[in-house]
Amino acid sequence: MCQLLGMNSLKPARLSFSLEGFLRRGGETGEHADGWGIALYEEQRCHLLIDEQPSCQSPLAQWIQQYSRRSRNIIAHIRKATQGVVSATNCHPFLRHLWGQEWAFAHNGNLDLAALPRPQNFQPCGQTDSELAFCLLLDGLHARFGSQIPDVAEIHACLSELSQKISAAGNFNFVLSNGQWLFAHRSTDLHYLVRAYPFGRAQLLDCALGIDFARHNESDDRMVIIATQPLTDEAWLALPQGEVVTFAEGLQLRFDSY
Amino acid sequence: MCQLLGMNSLKPARLSFSLEGFLRRGGETGEHADGWGIALYEEQRCHLLIDEQPSCQSPLAQWIQQYSRRSRNIIAHIRKATQGVVSATNCHPFLRHLWGQEWAFAHNGNLDLAALPRPQNFQPCGQTDSELAFCLLLDGLHARFGSQIPDVAEIHACLSELSQKISAAGNFNFVLSNGQWLFAHRSTDLHYLVRAYPFGRAQLLDCALGIDFARHNESDDRMVIIATQPLTDEAWLALPQGEVVTFAEGLQLRFDSY
Repeated sequence: MCQLLGMNSLKPARLSFSLEGFLRRGGETGEHADGWGIALYEEQRCHLLIDEQPSCQSPLAQWIQQYSRRSRNIIAHIRKATQGVVSATNCHPFLRHLWGQEWAFAHNGNLDLAALPRPQNFQPCGQTDSELAFCLLLDGLHARFGSQIPDVAEIHACLSELSQKISAAGNFNFVLSNGQWLFAHRSTDLHYLVRAYPFGRAQLLDCALGIDFARHNESDDRMVIIATQPLTDEAWLALPQGEVVTFAEGLQLRFDSY
Repeated sequence: MCQLLGMNSLKPARLSFSLEGFLRRGGETGEHADGWGIALYEEQRCHLLIDEQPSCQSPLAQWIQQYSRRSRNIIAHIRKATQGVVSATNCHPFLRHLWGQEWAFAHNGNLDLAALPRPQNFQPCGQTDSELAFCLLLDGLHARFGSQIPDVAEIHACLSELSQKISAAGNFNFVLSNGQWLFAHRSTDLHYLVRAYPFGRAQLLDCALGIDFARHNESDDRMVIIATQPLTDEAWLALPQGEVVTFAEGLQLRFDSY
């Protein structure tokens, strides 16, 4: 199985600390050594970086830690191949364009390919169940709203329906973003954490690295972090099972109809 | 105006030497300091890296030179903004998906936005004439062939027609790839060079760097390089004006009907 990481922040931010622990799971403290990738949004443009090397020894990871720009939305993924060969084509995140927006997606879980329909307008490039499921999500959004850009409540409702259908084919833990909102769906494992004032201290679980967020944040900073398994000794919560949860500006959005 | 670089190679290769000269034109030996980007194909997957910093001082450029994988198709672009603000959203290359393939595109020249139609299925994310023209090319391919993947001769013919129409709105020098073929169109400035056996020596025009390709290549290596202006003292040729030229495996493809 793979591991997911997502971030949605009020202000552009680096994810250095959490990423440090996460990337060690790719071959060092975890067995997810079949490649990794990261989608970093800068404004609405998505920088998508992928590498088949284990993330714990990837020069790309070092470069991102040192030089990448601050971002409001980040999706990262470390892979343990279950479907599809180990190749760049099958590395998450995947990227597609809808409504003049760049959408990035990463998945953890196994889906039965035979139980999934074929998408109409969005075609996978590789062989994974994950990319197919991503195409089905965008296909469903496009079929529902056409070229008319819906509001976030409508997208949330549509993604909830689509995710329920796709989940019938297996485990469907995912993080999805268009550079503005971060959507997450948990079938089995997916946790989240809001870092906001008053900031405390945290210790990574994968290495002896601690941080005092109060020293590195301003009082109005706020971000949500999503991860398959908790990355720190902070108070992570499991996301509700079988639901799409939507985040904007570091906060969960609540919709009346849900 | 911007500058373009394209590469199509029989075997996966690095473009280090030519890239070294090209990236100096982004702020050092040239005035194209409003960002840069590169699309490197690994198999059919496109790594797309963009940066608003001048390429001559970009850490991303250094990282690519040191660590990027070998590629059969590369497109790079250094920008001098003429339309659209200086931002990641407006940096070339642009990426879109068609027929389960990743298509990358970079443009040099100015097009009159008002003289261009609106695309139906491919929408720009940013404000540039270039991204709009790219969307029009893919829109035209999709309108002509639907979900049926055409052969390269059909794509070449369709791109030739579409490029002629778009060229009526201004200067349309571009390089385009799907990871297998490299297409180029010259309105004003675009040169090319085939490096093949017997390999010779070359000297960069932008810095005191020379190379003996005979020492770095095998006898069956072959690649074509495309650049707005020649990068070396080798025998570059101008591409034919107003025509799409298509390259595969480091060679120009010839089509009977043209």
